[in-house]
Amino acid sequence: MTDYFKSIDAMTVFSSEKAAKVEAFIGQHLFVGLNCFETGQSQKSHIHPGSDKFYLVLSGKASMIVGDQTREVEAGTVVWAPADVPHGVAKARERTVMLVAIAPPPGRIGA
Amino acid sequence: MTDYFKSIDAMTVFSSEKAAKVEAFIGQHLFVGLNCFETGQSQKSHIHPGSDKFYLVLSGKASMIVGDQTREVEAGTVVWAPADVPHGVAKARERTVMLVAIAPPPGRIGA
Repeated sequence: MTDYFKSIDAMTVFSSEKAAKVEAFIGQHLFVGLNCFETGQSQKSHIHPGSDKFYLVLSGKASMIVGDQTREVEAGTVVWAPADVPHGVAKARERTVMLVAIAPPPGRIGA
Repeated sequence: MTDYFKSIDAMTVFSSEKAAKVEAFIGQHLFVGLNCFETGQSQKSHIHPGSDKFYLVLSGKASMIVGDQTREVEAGTVVWAPADVPHGVAKARERTVMLVAIAPPPGRIGA
């Protein structure tokens, strides 16, 4: 049986190798998960063709880029990355956890 | 020009009349916003045909229902409501703010 309720704290993981990704839930139309950064880690600028995405910073601080905008973000910032607009995390300035949602989920476009 | 960055605190609103809804961003594939509850307010159980949805509790405490599961939730709980599964907020036990994402956005299914 699907458990419809999950705790962010119980899902959070970090890796000294690179920013860690966690899948929380995935459906036909929507993916939700976590991106977890140690201080100094980054996420290369990239696009999701045909998928809208947002991040919500849950803890920490980071420098983020969407399109031609760069901002210092912290807990409580929502970051919108619409389909086909490049986005990434230039640098986590502290240990940082972000919730991330992507629709349609990667690999399910047109499914 | 679209501002890709918004603050949860700056968007949060409450109404004594009923639970308040805020749109943060909307694209072709994804909606993200806030549901803000005063203590005692609720959100009737409902379905989104063909759309996946999740809530993230940002602050407060509430009793929530998805399908046949009922839980007491608090900050840090992610609540998954896949397409066609009934869900709602039985009662906010404190002033409660939830981020909510819906894909595809209401009114844009098949668009």
